[in-house]
Amino acid sequence: MKLKIAVLPGDGVGPEVTAQAVKVLKAIAQEFDHTFQFKYAPVGAVAIDETGEPLPKTTLDLCKATDAILFGAIGDPKYDNDPSAKVRPEQGLLKLRKELGLYANIRPVKAYDTLLDKSPLKRHIIKGTDICIYRELTGGIYFGEKKLSDDGNTASDLCEYTRAEIERITHLAFKSAQSRKRKVTLVDKANVLESSRLWRRVVTEVSQEYKDVKLDFLFVDNAAMQIILNPKQFDVILTENMFGDIISDEASVIGGSIGLLASASVGDYFAMFEPIHGSYPQAKDLGIANPIASILSAAMLLDHFGLFEEAELIREGVERSLKLNITTPDLNTKFNHISTSKVGDFIEDFI
Amino acid sequence: MKLKIAVLPGDGVGPEVTAQAVKVLKAIAQEFDHTFQFKYAPVGAVAIDETGEPLPKTTLDLCKATDAILFGAIGDPKYDNDPSAKVRPEQGLLKLRKELGLYANIRPVKAYDTLLDKSPLKRHIIKGTDICIYRELTGGIYFGEKKLSDDGNTASDLCEYTRAEIERITHLAFKSAQSRKRKVTLVDKANVLESSRLWRRVVTEVSQEYKDVKLDFLFVDNAAMQIILNPKQFDVILTENMFGDIISDEASVIGGSIGLLASASVGDYFAMFEPIHGSYPQAKDLGIANPIASILSAAMLLDHFGLFEEAELIREGVERSLKLNITTPDLNTKFNHISTSKVGDFIEDFI
Ligand SMILES: CC(C)[C@H](C(=O)O)[C@@H](O)C(=O)O
Ligand SMILES: CC(C)[C@H](C(=O)O)[C@@H](O)C(=O)O
Repeated sequence: MKLKIAVLPGDGVGPEVTAQAVKVLKAIAQEFDHTFQFKYAPVGAVAIDETGEPLPKTTLDLCKATDAILFGAIGDPKYDNDPSAKVRPEQGLLKLRKELGLYANIRPVKAYDTLLDKSPLKRHIIKGTDICIYRELTGGIYFGEKKLSDDGNTASDLCEYTRAEIERITHLAFKSAQSRKRKVTLVDKANVLESSRLWRRVVTEVSQEYKDVKLDFLFVDNAAMQIILNPKQFDVILTENMFGDIISDEASVIGGSIGLLASASVGDYFAMFEPIHGSYPQAKDLGIANPIASILSAAMLLDHFGLFEEAELIREGVERSLKLNITTPDLNTKFNHISTSKVGDFIEDFI
Repeated sequence: MKLKIAVLPGDGVGPEVTAQAVKVLKAIAQEFDHTFQFKYAPVGAVAIDETGEPLPKTTLDLCKATDAILFGAIGDPKYDNDPSAKVRPEQGLLKLRKELGLYANIRPVKAYDTLLDKSPLKRHIIKGTDICIYRELTGGIYFGEKKLSDDGNTASDLCEYTRAEIERITHLAFKSAQSRKRKVTLVDKANVLESSRLWRRVVTEVSQEYKDVKLDFLFVDNAAMQIILNPKQFDVILTENMFGDIISDEASVIGGSIGLLASASVGDYFAMFEPIHGSYPQAKDLGIANPIASILSAAMLLDHFGLFEEAELIREGVERSLKLNITTPDLNTKFNHISTSKVGDFIEDFI
């Protein structure tokens, strides 16, 4: 297979971890006789520094001309504490999602047996957890109208959803549930929000087309509790943009390290793959960032193109590295000095 | 001291647990020679059933004519799965908060030593945790304009904040931090939301008046993770309405049971005290609902009027009951059949 892949390393540890994912993809290409072509482009704070814009037109054009995007991370503290900054790295990511129509963010959360002890949660609570979160990614309060009054004393954000926006991701979530444990949990705040009541109505309607899948509902406050109290009760979680942002980061504690979690952002025409961790600027260039989330994003990319055997091989490599403790310091208590690129090398060699 | 207390038991297990709190307050009155007068009024689903309205005018008037309100719980599943219901129990609670100007919801979260093993989190993660959450309660997306298009296919909620709304709760949070560990963490999503950027700006300004308190910031997604990974890093958490709803329910897992957590909702003129757990309708009338959260709300009520010794005695009673395993089934693995009212009786006797 021939694939053109846009690589957007972004900020902070993004470049280091993405480099490992590319290394692994190259090994796969060689082993399975595929042709993967990689094209690099800037996004985020580095793009602002270079061009003044968080998502330069050339980067967007490149993304539109490729089959898939491998994304690193975005964000720089110099913008976080300046609430009046007009240009922000995050805008690059949000615009990319919107322009490419990446309306569904898919985040699998698994408790790896070898890592049960790393989690702040007790072993019996998490063992066997296997959740897949479907977060709506191009609507809601992220993209609704934002206002700041002229005197700067009143600010607002609009959370808006349409039936069409809810329907399309709902279908994806139910289809996924059909090949899993056949359960979808809608997380909302229908006892307070009008938009949540629309979600409940539309999702209930769509669910009629999937009689083999059970649908239930949880208010987001209760969901935030249940994910920790009893994560095994969940199969597919479906939710809107802001709740999904919170719930999926929260759920990352189950795995023991946010450095393990990959995600896919998909739409009808494009697909992007990225670790869920952020740019982690404190760790930049120290060689301590865990590349596994990025490497597993590469596996999700291969899955997306039906290259299941290839994806599986990457996952085996990851499990092997975890088992043998060839891991960065966030997971490693045994060996010192196993760097980001050493972990990448190990998985590359395995392939 | 003479206090007029409005008792609003509400729905589900509300009446059972509130009855124990009243029992305990009566014991305190007797022991310390206070006069507490209790007046009952309906709210929530029971009020809808009786009067057609979730917050009847007589109930609101009673609240305005008393010194403090003891609240039970609200909510009934028959309304949750009917997204088109015009009247909803929750409206009663929201209206009460708004009409009484209860703009700050204060939720202490502590890890009780005797209960460390009940938590889904590991002992070393939670031991010593002592957080106080300040959640804004009368603004934001809860109260912003709600719209549903005529064709029913577009719905929206507006999240709006003004400088004044942010300032008043920020002062409360900083004052509280001064008598604690002198740290306030603002939880927001300033990398995406205009309203969060206003929060960051205003809180930063107000913090100048409290040079002895350290201020830091966390994005809500990261906060949802940090609360589980390392809850001991927090002292006072300050946040807006919706984020506070999620984060504080999530934090309840630290204590091992949501049945232990009390809260105070205060404004410039009124104050209301309630357990943070909901109406838990499945448990109604079974005698299994944990009354401790409600009893601890009563202790917060006494604190509010400067009756610290009295409040402390209630807390000692609670700790004693936990230590001796005189607890409802959610906490009890040793004795069967210790009912809601038996726990109340024990703490009453202790006083
Ligand atoms: C960086 C930020 C804008 C982004 C989001 O909130 O969506 C991130 O937290 C994520 O989850 O991908
Ligand atoms: C019942 C509901 C409206 C309420 C809220 O969301 O504020 C509850 O969850 C709470 O936290 O007190």
